[in-house]
Amino acid sequence: MTDPRFIAHALALAARGLGRTWPNPAVGCVIERDGIVLGRARTADGGRPHAEPQALAQAGAAARGATAHVTLEPCAHHGGTPPCADALIAAGLARVVVALRDPDPRVDGGGIARLRAAGVEVVEGVMADAAARLQQGFLTLVRHGRPMVTLKLAQTLDGRIATASGESQWITGPAARAHVHAERACHDAILIGAGTARADDPRLTVRGMGAAHARGPQPLRIVISRHLRLPVEAALTSGGPPVWMLHSDSAPQLQRDALMAKGVTLIPCAIDAVGQIDLVDALAQLGQRGLTRIYCEGGGTLAASLLSAGLVDRLDCYTAGLLIGAEGTPALGAMGVGPLAEAPRLHLRDVLRLGPDVLHRWERA
Amino acid sequence: MTDPRFIAHALALAARGLGRTWPNPAVGCVIERDGIVLGRARTADGGRPHAEPQALAQAGAAARGATAHVTLEPCAHHGGTPPCADALIAAGLARVVVALRDPDPRVDGGGIARLRAAGVEVVEGVMADAAARLQQGFLTLVRHGRPMVTLKLAQTLDGRIATASGESQWITGPAARAHVHAERACHDAILIGAGTARADDPRLTVRGMGAAHARGPQPLRIVISRHLRLPVEAALTSGGPPVWMLHSDSAPQLQRDALMAKGVTLIPCAIDAVGQIDLVDALAQLGQRGLTRIYCEGGGTLAASLLSAGLVDRLDCYTAGLLIGAEGTPALGAMGVGPLAEAPRLHLRDVLRLGPDVLHRWERA
Repeated sequence: MTDPRFIAHALALAARGLGRTWPNPAVGCVIERDGIVLGRARTADGGRPHAEPQALAQAGAAARGATAHVTLEPCAHHGGTPPCADALIAAGLARVVVALRDPDPRVDGGGIARLRAAGVEVVEGVMADAAARLQQGFLTLVRHGRPMVTLKLAQTLDGRIATASGESQWITGPAARAHVHAERACHDAILIGAGTARADDPRLTVRGMGAAHARGPQPLRIVISRHLRLPVEAALTSGGPPVWMLHSDSAPQLQRDALMAKGVTLIPCAIDAVGQIDLVDALAQLGQRGLTRIYCEGGGTLAASLLSAGLVDRLDCYTAGLLIGAEGTPALGAMGVGPLAEAPRLHLRDVLRLGPDVLHRWERA
Repeated sequence: MTDPRFIAHALALAARGLGRTWPNPAVGCVIERDGIVLGRARTADGGRPHAEPQALAQAGAAARGATAHVTLEPCAHHGGTPPCADALIAAGLARVVVALRDPDPRVDGGGIARLRAAGVEVVEGVMADAAARLQQGFLTLVRHGRPMVTLKLAQTLDGRIATASGESQWITGPAARAHVHAERACHDAILIGAGTARADDPRLTVRGMGAAHARGPQPLRIVISRHLRLPVEAALTSGGPPVWMLHSDSAPQLQRDALMAKGVTLIPCAIDAVGQIDLVDALAQLGQRGLTRIYCEGGGTLAASLLSAGLVDRLDCYTAGLLIGAEGTPALGAMGVGPLAEAPRLHLRDVLRLGPDVLHRWERA
């Protein structure tokens, strides 16, 4: 029998890498013998080194005959580092417990086959569901060529994000806002629409997460803006993590030059049938650049478009016990929903109390 | 020490009377000696007999020297029945444990004083918070002269109750709808606005609650309709529990006569500054008629008006993982909220998963 505590431990280690390892998956590895942990690591920030060689280095000669517990199938291909499967074989591991196969066509069972061919016992599928949830970003990228999208809404009980006069600070309390910063930290990038960029002039940085996080990488900041009608001098372009802007061909060259001079990376995107940035293409562009986890913070137009296009994998709805009424700004813009049976439907994942507010998390059915 | 399990038991009995005992409070009484329950009862449907004489009758001579646990102070005044305090004294109870004093000016400590004067030991305040929550309707009536108001919303994640074309069945699932029927059953009356009565032609009866409930009283059905512009032949007026309609002087006499001929009770109400039914007066009228617990099921205009007027004591928000977008009908109508700091704010009480939906319950701060 395989003791699932070691995979659980490896998953907890891997989770610390979310938002920090792209384009690589955040993997955890625990090397153990007779219940004694000999080495443990996660994929390093930036994606290298992988978890396995770090854990093997800790275990040293003691790895011979031990068991490695890994959250994702060890790689079998020569990328920037030699294949992890080979490193595990060379170290003399007797057994490898794998939570989940890596669907990346360069691996896809190849790591496991390599281990077995070398006489290493392989156990598959331990805590596979938890591993799949943890790797959702990487799996979405491999399978669909786009990053997973988490949509955040922070709204009143009646679905409003601002009063009629535009006042929106603060609807949710400090506990919910701190939770949002923690969510930002475990995504590769934060995404907003041009309207929100203009209206709120946000920084979109991770703040208040302590010294340990302050040393680590911050998520990218991405704005979708067809015409790049954005102030060149904004909080986003005044230092901080990289800014990418997705735009159409119609964006004026002068504005492009000014933004590039501020260090902004511009990514031209296709236009859809109604003249908006094609979100399928936009996400494909982000996938091509290796992003696995996107955290969308609005506004209502972008949120509605992502939902209508079926591109939201998770929806985090922070709800405050506040009521604004029909004059307030709705959290979601127009969606063009016809019959109720065709409205986008999500499944409830969990519910969390955050001080005076409640967070309900929904996911793709 | 007082064992709180007996008050807990009495509270559970009392809860079964909610929605059935008005204008009297739903009270529970457990008579116990040395941990053996000798008698237990709740206020009967319609408010009489009270809990105490029923429990005393069960205990008989064994009540002498025993302890009575009551959720509300025994009455001290001659109403339709002799005072319960006197009955407890006459039965020779040694001790009475009271969860909560009865603030009714005809009692207000008088029952406890009467018991103590007769040499009965009285313990007060056991599970007082739970008792106050249970008696919230009765306490609101005594203190504010109006029934407590529970507002129900059943909405999509983005706060919509229908599509642009008016389709609204069904947003929430069977578990949430069954929960609503259970909530109807423990309120004295169900309240809706005229728009909802016209649009949905609802029955507003308690259904699917089993044989035990089918024998019991159903909640009244109340419609607020300034001009009584309602079809005379409707589901509401075609049998079922009594219907009350709150209207203004401007309602045409012909329509009044037609509705009265269908058995509807008409209650004229004052008009507020903007020409609508004055909700403070309307609830006072209902309080004068003895109602303690009102369950408001919309629509959005009435819900917004009740919230704006500060008349909502509890808000039950059933939320489905469905998204309709800004074209949908909002759960709340216009509220005229100015600064965000002045928007009505409620406190989160609890969160419940109901099949695919989530219920979050909020209450007055």
